[in-house]
Amino acid sequence: MGRTHSNGYNRIPNFFPELEHIPVLKAVCSRTKEKASAFADQWGYESFETDWKKVVERNDIDAIDICTPNDTHAEIAIAAAATGKMVLTEKPLSRTLAEGIEMVDAVEKAGVKNSVWYNYRRIPAVTLAKQIIDSGKLGKIFHYRANFLQDWTINADLPQGGEGLWRMDAAVAGSGVTGDLLAHCIDTAMWLNGGIRDVTAVTETFVKERMHQLTGKVEKVSIDDACAFLCHFDNGSLGLFESTRYARGHKALYTFEINGENASLAWDLHDLNRLEYFDHGDESKVRGWRSIHVTDGDQPYMDKWWVPGLSIGYEHSFVHQAADFLRSLETGGPCAPTFRDALQTQKVCESVLGSASSGSWEKTDVEW
Amino acid sequence: MGRTHSNGYNRIPNFFPELEHIPVLKAVCSRTKEKASAFADQWGYESFETDWKKVVERNDIDAIDICTPNDTHAEIAIAAAATGKMVLTEKPLSRTLAEGIEMVDAVEKAGVKNSVWYNYRRIPAVTLAKQIIDSGKLGKIFHYRANFLQDWTINADLPQGGEGLWRMDAAVAGSGVTGDLLAHCIDTAMWLNGGIRDVTAVTETFVKERMHQLTGKVEKVSIDDACAFLCHFDNGSLGLFESTRYARGHKALYTFEINGENASLAWDLHDLNRLEYFDHGDESKVRGWRSIHVTDGDQPYMDKWWVPGLSIGYEHSFVHQAADFLRSLETGGPCAPTFRDALQTQKVCESVLGSASSGSWEKTDVEW
Amino acid sequence: MGRTHSNGYNRIPNFFPELEHIPVLKAVCSRTKEKASAFADQWGYESFETDWKKVVERNDIDAIDICTPNDTHAEIAIAAAATGKMVLTEKPLSRTLAEGIEMVDAVEKAGVKNSVWYNYRRIPAVTLAKQIIDSGKLGKIFHYRANFLQDWTINADLPQGGEGLWRMDAAVAGSGVTGDLLAHCIDTAMWLNGGIRDVTAVTETFVKERMHQLTGKVEKVSIDDACAFLCHFDNGSLGLFESTRYARGHKALYTFEINGENASLAWDLHDLNRLEYFDHGDESKVRGWRSIHVTDGDQPYMDKWWVPGLSIGYEHSFVHQAADFLRSLETGGPCAPTFRDALQTQKVCESVLGSASSGSWEKTDVEW
Amino acid sequence: MGRTHSNGYNRIPNFFPELEHIPVLKAVCSRTKEKASAFADQWGYESFETDWKKVVERNDIDAIDICTPNDTHAEIAIAAAATGKMVLTEKPLSRTLAEGIEMVDAVEKAGVKNSVWYNYRRIPAVTLAKQIIDSGKLGKIFHYRANFLQDWTINADLPQGGEGLWRMDAAVAGSGVTGDLLAHCIDTAMWLNGGIRDVTAVTETFVKERMHQLTGKVEKVSIDDACAFLCHFDNGSLGLFESTRYARGHKALYTFEINGENASLAWDLHDLNRLEYFDHGDESKVRGWRSIHVTDGDQPYMDKWWVPGLSIGYEHSFVHQAADFLRSLETGGPCAPTFRDALQTQKVCESVLGSASSGSWEKTDVEW
Repeated sequence: MGRTHSNGYNRIPNFFPELEHIPVLKAVCSRTKEKASAFADQWGYESFETDWKKVVERNDIDAIDICTPNDTHAEIAIAAAATGKMVLTEKPLSRTLAEGIEMVDAVEKAGVKNSVWYNYRRIPAVTLAKQIIDSGKLGKIFHYRANFLQDWTINADLPQGGEGLWRMDAAVAGSGVTGDLLAHCIDTAMWLNGGIRDVTAVTETFVKERMHQLTGKVEKVSIDDACAFLCHFDNGSLGLFESTRYARGHKALYTFEINGENASLAWDLHDLNRLEYFDHGDESKVRGWRSIHVTDGDQPYMDKWWVPGLSIGYEHSFVHQAADFLRSLETGGPCAPTFRDALQTQKVCESVLGSASSGSWEKTDVEW
Repeated sequence: MGRTHSNGYNRIPNFFPELEHIPVLKAVCSRTKEKASAFADQWGYESFETDWKKVVERNDIDAIDICTPNDTHAEIAIAAAATGKMVLTEKPLSRTLAEGIEMVDAVEKAGVKNSVWYNYRRIPAVTLAKQIIDSGKLGKIFHYRANFLQDWTINADLPQGGEGLWRMDAAVAGSGVTGDLLAHCIDTAMWLNGGIRDVTAVTETFVKERMHQLTGKVEKVSIDDACAFLCHFDNGSLGLFESTRYARGHKALYTFEINGENASLAWDLHDLNRLEYFDHGDESKVRGWRSIHVTDGDQPYMDKWWVPGLSIGYEHSFVHQAADFLRSLETGGPCAPTFRDALQTQKVCESVLGSASSGSWEKTDVEW
Repeated sequence: MGRTHSNGYNRIPNFFPELEHIPVLKAVCSRTKEKASAFADQWGYESFETDWKKVVERNDIDAIDICTPNDTHAEIAIAAAATGKMVLTEKPLSRTLAEGIEMVDAVEKAGVKNSVWYNYRRIPAVTLAKQIIDSGKLGKIFHYRANFLQDWTINADLPQGGEGLWRMDAAVAGSGVTGDLLAHCIDTAMWLNGGIRDVTAVTETFVKERMHQLTGKVEKVSIDDACAFLCHFDNGSLGLFESTRYARGHKALYTFEINGENASLAWDLHDLNRLEYFDHGDESKVRGWRSIHVTDGDQPYMDKWWVPGLSIGYEHSFVHQAADFLRSLETGGPCAPTFRDALQTQKVCESVLGSASSGSWEKTDVEW
Repeated sequence: MGRTHSNGYNRIPNFFPELEHIPVLKAVCSRTKEKASAFADQWGYESFETDWKKVVERNDIDAIDICTPNDTHAEIAIAAAATGKMVLTEKPLSRTLAEGIEMVDAVEKAGVKNSVWYNYRRIPAVTLAKQIIDSGKLGKIFHYRANFLQDWTINADLPQGGEGLWRMDAAVAGSGVTGDLLAHCIDTAMWLNGGIRDVTAVTETFVKERMHQLTGKVEKVSIDDACAFLCHFDNGSLGLFESTRYARGHKALYTFEINGENASLAWDLHDLNRLEYFDHGDESKVRGWRSIHVTDGDQPYMDKWWVPGLSIGYEHSFVHQAADFLRSLETGGPCAPTFRDALQTQKVCESVLGSASSGSWEKTDVEW
């Protein structure tokens, strides 16, 4: 994710020249000198470090952006906050709810600006969905459903853990698809549709044992390969969520749909420039789902890019988030989702895993 | 549903002339003479009755086809079986599992041929899905998901119960969307993917009170407006099901998708001639979901209709079921789904409603 | 096509019971006794003949419906008109413009009702397109494009001419794709967008020689395998048309699109229940092509069929045309397209073939 | 277009770090100091000029990239070639064929590397189409069709000519949609399917008079608002091309489709990550158009970006072209399309406009 964040910062001067603050890439940190140096060269960092503590201590640095595996988020974020630096972290906030609470405490106590890269909020079609919902066009909401389907771990010979595969090791990642994929779905869902009250969930680990890259031994797989849950939102609507890495044919099918009394919306990451919109207010004989190609200058963020009809891609969501973060420095407000916002997602994830384990409905204690 | 069944029978001589047995529409029964007479005229019935017991007693009739509201299925079926007649019934089999058990007992004890009109099995694209799965192309199955989404009861001024609206009265229908819509999803699912072992479910009644057409009073709504559940199939795959009448923009969106180790399939009733198929065995650079337009002569049932590329519709599934029923008279085998098959769907429905009530996972005791 | 027409008539009592005139299938005619008899049995004709002249002479018959190959349309239609019978014919009207003129003269002189089965006008989505255009929603029209793409003659081993293959013999069919496929596109186009003024065209015969079924010899192929043309409509819009039997992957892709100042429409036979509609009057941020699932009771013909969301198919267009023909007996008006309407399509086809031969723009002399 | 080219260069170090030559943005030129200075700041140019001749004369510059309106391409390119600099130009090559010939002569005489930014060749899905065709999977080609449809000039109050609107002034642009949009379609077509032999065309100017921004007067519109043509390719296939700025509902619908004996391909700029592919070699019962989401590492250029399923956009085609240009410096080969390649497109455009004027088929004299 270091590439997507770096690219997000690098493109600010070209596409958001009006911003007061232009990011300066002071230092990149990676475990080995070779990697750090090469990355610094490739992405234009002024310097590099191999010990993150050195970066945190440097006085010429204002903000720390954490793109490391999940098991280091808490430690780095807390240390960075302690030095008064702004802290950004790749999602999910943390491995566990307990870690997340510590992180929120740290940044709030330090009073430092903080944000989590739930980047999909800043896909223009998704931001437009938010605007449409906030405008009241949907009316009372009845249903929300989302899924995030991949197929890259079906092969039972794929090892677990280690370089490039830490997402398959619960000790590092915290969980499997729940923290990796469902967390995205949950963040978007609560942003669009408000808090999730309670959940009933199921998880599954289809391949029970895999060779672990670090030990070289066949070990029990610790993560959830798939997770699905039903829920109630605070607004009374029903939710249905599913994620898996075993849905053959789907590389990264993140979709959501929301059904309101008067209108509905649907989106699919595979065709991310499009938003599907159904307006029951349309004349009945010519009513149908509208496929909105969200590439016009009056649609979110699209005045920054090209002419109508010309697509942008996945990486642009990070550019938008970087720009919004920088803009929040001007306005003084938070750059959502903050650590606290992301903690609510963490609570839902913990309830989901808890319910999958207990077999019962679990309350989330989310405050949204 | 009397129209779809009658049309199913009427078209047999034209499109399945090779069958030994051609249906003869001996009598139609409806509550009033006007309705019964008009229907008989329109659809070519030789006679009509206003008391179903008279039909059951007639010696010139070999088979009774029940298209009445759910609360009469059991009584009529049991009476018909007692006279040794073949019995067909519109889905769902019954309002309750208890009724269903009695019906299965009746037809099995009487030894009469029996069948339930879960018509979607006979949409050619769905039948092709079954053939593909049975061929082993999908390999081990990981996921099954289905939904049936409608939006026709959102208006809170819509009355409940009575003429044309008995589906909104649990006393008549047995349940709301669970028996009406999810039952379709469950029948197809178990046919394609085997038995469902246990479920956790949620139901919701969004509009709590409606005027009842028969009493003229505003009464508590008895049905489930929406129902969703998670489940385990016997083969170890996870299932996700949802149905509602509050999904704005969807008239009759019945979709299912099944993900296997090597291939996946998806279908949508709105575009019923198409089957989406992903084959991981395709060369990687040119791999993608195939949109199969199931209108060729080598695809199920399509040698009976038109030339490749020319669509058929919803009603054809009933013609196919009528034809398969008639063919079963020649072969002597059952015409699936039998009452017993449909009873398994009833068990899942009962478990789903039970789980929604108890908040716990419920076993289904399905034998598939 | 005898099957589609017979089915069209047979379903009238069931689905259009309000009509005063219900068709009675008095006689079918086919070249051999075996075929004629079998067809009469299968479709419910009261009698059969093997000489069409006998049918034309029978006094118990009011209307003659011609479903024979194109080379017999003129002779039968003219003879039928001479006896004062109503005449319907499968499209195209005739092999040549000259034949068509004779046919129009015959029915108009005889004063008999006449109609040509350009059935696609009666697909509900297409009829809805007509209603939308006539309502003025599109404003000034700029563009019309249509194509009809098939792939069934790519195999060079397919013989030409003879049983089941007369469409590949220009002596019987008049032309190849121009009369078979483009004629449909042209009929719909002029119905929706008015007369075509002039054309420039190209034709191609990709496989130059094929074995002729009747002679058993390899002969020069006489038909156009593909044909495309550009044109001006009388209303100033530009037209673009293409048809072929060599478009691998398309079984029967008949599409049209019309672009107006304020709105646009598009349709595709493969998904015939859908009409795509773009309304520039929609609020700009939520504007997009609407996919209208034309299955609601307030949409053309759909009050006759099932509930919203449930599809009909290709054959229904013939039922609708039969119903409209019967209704025209009540109203006394014509049942479009009449022979005269179809003659205008014939003129365009003749100009298209003429232009393909001359290499110049050709005027059509169409009066619409 | 200065933005897309500058962005193309700027991203090279981040995404193509393996290249020997990394572009250095030495100077940008614009007519006013304000614009030039601001652009230099925004995009990271080391310096700026307001007279292009000064740029051409500078010794510290190796390559000139022309992003100016079409009427200046020839003069700048010829001057740049004369100084021995490499020359790149935004498409189309030139306003007229005569200008194009001079340009080709200039760069070839000077022996300088030259290239034209027909960027759509480098959309990964389009490059994949080229690879598939070159692999022989399609077999003999029968049909090619393409269109480029926009709707931004429908409003008759839109002025012509001047700032931001030079594309509507033939004196500057050379032509209307023919050079602006069809040129893209023609370049891709000949790249994929070989030379175009002859054409018959039609053009239309729907709004005959518009206010000219520079004169402030209502003047005759000089450009073609729409243009369509039929053609023969050298390989015997038929072509059909259309472009317009009056197709309501289409912002930038650039599509092409190619039909071969064994397989077909289709693409749409609106959903540029997808390539549609039909392979007749697939088993017949499960055969259908495949929707390939071209985002895997083994697909063209995609190893440079993100993980499978994550989209890229329009601008990436320019990054790819910049990278290929730089790589051609290493290999010493040309970077297609060269000026000579683009001249062939110019010849087709000129023949198309000639045919639209003469009403006859015109030969193109293309050598491909």
